[in-house]
Amino acid sequence: MAAWMRLKYPHVVLGALASSAPILYFDHIIPQDAFYAVVSKDFKDVSQNCHDVIKKSWSEMDRLSLEKNGLLLLSQAFNTCRELKSVEELKSRLADFYVVAAQYDLYPIPDICKSVDQAWKQSNNTLKCLRAALDAIFGTDCFSLDYSIYSHETEEGWDWQTCSEMVMPLGSSNETMFYPNPFILANFSDSCMRKYGVRPKADWIISYFGGQDIKLVLKRFGSNIIFSNGLIDPYSSGGVLEDLSDTLVALKAQQGSHCFDLYPASGNDPEWLVKIKAEEVKIVAAWLEDYYKDLGGLILKKV
Amino acid sequence: MAAWMRLKYPHVVLGALASSAPILYFDHIIPQDAFYAVVSKDFKDVSQNCHDVIKKSWSEMDRLSLEKNGLLLLSQAFNTCRELKSVEELKSRLADFYVVAAQYDLYPIPDICKSVDQAWKQSNNTLKCLRAALDAIFGTDCFSLDYSIYSHETEEGWDWQTCSEMVMPLGSSNETMFYPNPFILANFSDSCMRKYGVRPKADWIISYFGGQDIKLVLKRFGSNIIFSNGLIDPYSSGGVLEDLSDTLVALKAQQGSHCFDLYPASGNDPEWLVKIKAEEVKIVAAWLEDYYKDLGGLILKKV
Repeated sequence: MAAWMRLKYPHVVLGALASSAPILYFDHIIPQDAFYAVVSKDFKDVSQNCHDVIKKSWSEMDRLSLEKNGLLLLSQAFNTCRELKSVEELKSRLADFYVVAAQYDLYPIPDICKSVDQAWKQSNNTLKCLRAALDAIFGTDCFSLDYSIYSHETEEGWDWQTCSEMVMPLGSSNETMFYPNPFILANFSDSCMRKYGVRPKADWIISYFGGQDIKLVLKRFGSNIIFSNGLIDPYSSGGVLEDLSDTLVALKAQQGSHCFDLYPASGNDPEWLVKIKAEEVKIVAAWLEDYYKDLGGLILKKV
Repeated sequence: MAAWMRLKYPHVVLGALASSAPILYFDHIIPQDAFYAVVSKDFKDVSQNCHDVIKKSWSEMDRLSLEKNGLLLLSQAFNTCRELKSVEELKSRLADFYVVAAQYDLYPIPDICKSVDQAWKQSNNTLKCLRAALDAIFGTDCFSLDYSIYSHETEEGWDWQTCSEMVMPLGSSNETMFYPNPFILANFSDSCMRKYGVRPKADWIISYFGGQDIKLVLKRFGSNIIFSNGLIDPYSSGGVLEDLSDTLVALKAQQGSHCFDLYPASGNDPEWLVKIKAEEVKIVAAWLEDYYKDLGGLILKKV
């Protein structure tokens, strides 16, 4: 949004730090499963076995849910805080757990995978492996099905955005460690109609801000934008990951998560994070220097 | 508008030829009488006496209108096609005549001033001088009070624009050869309310497209715009008259009128006009060359 603000209001905004800005995640510029592919890669990079166990687990859940008292058995297997209403509820909650682990680096993927891998050695039972991972993260707490890391306002606000102006075609496929859940615009549109009485404008972002061939556009038009992305953040798949010009700069951090560079310095920041923030400050300082140089020139001319 | 289109939709519009684009005629970036000052200069450059006679004529009309049968006398003096309803009607029609002469080079100012100056030598009567000028232009035709060079649609369309989004504070002052007629936003707003039931958004252009310090903004942001202005066009007062960067170029023509470079070649085009059009084609060709070069690079990368 910072990048778009700079593009549309260069007379108001001198420059933008567009952190984790997936400006290419529209109109199928990138594959719709790119988001879930990054999460899968994050897990695979830590442990191929962990990735494979998760990938196998979905059909296992489906299978168990069809048994007698299947949902109760599943609820017990995952220590859910209340009994499951459907297997989809569990699958969607677990998918969310993996996404949040990657996107915000909230639950360390190495911790999750360590538990999965250890359990795998003992039993080769995918569901037991996942239970072990949840226990490692949540301790003796039950696994809440109704918890979200977002406030209700954030959740509803973002949901409304995706139903109106910011339609991101996010869908998972068999190529990822997730269960197939393709994005189908017509279905999505119907759900928006039910929830908010609106139909999403799927091509608005592209026609208003551009997107197709955005690199071509930005190279000769636009300036003063830092596109920063943490590469473990699944949204980085829709980000600008290469410099487009001297003042349209891409910064990448291998270990960075979503908006990793926007948090205040903690004192515990790793060296790579300290370095990238310093780089950003240096770039913005150079923009300001140019600005005041230009301004000085104009003032001198007026005298 | 072409410049604004390029600024807001660089992904749709590769470049713009912004001919006679008064993008600085908003929010009092330039003096409100700048428009009328250019018309006055156009007349003064041809003949100081002609300019002075016109400047003196307004009070003469006011004086005569107050005499017994004053409006009838004025109507006869100017050979109007019907009797005048007020002196303001005549003053406003004459002001329009001078503006149109300058803006569109529709009535040659040298012809107008030649008649004024010749008549002045014979009588020193300002109104007789102006009548001589009208006769020179319109021959034996009466002077229509209800004529406009614009179609009704154009007139109404533009009027609506100025009452909604494009509020240009155009007012004449004593510094010009016109009678003082300052632009007062409150009065203008009331007239818009009466005519269209709307109040103008006087600061919309500036906040949406920029304007204040636009040179500062465009120098570091924006590309591929030709700002062309004919300097006898009064709107050139609100135009960009100097290069801002390599691809934000100002072209000026001393003798050019409003949108002088947008008409098809006539075969009678003077040399300076042929030259300026060729320059424009050359610049646009270079933009296209850059574009295809960039495009080629991208295609090569994809392969």
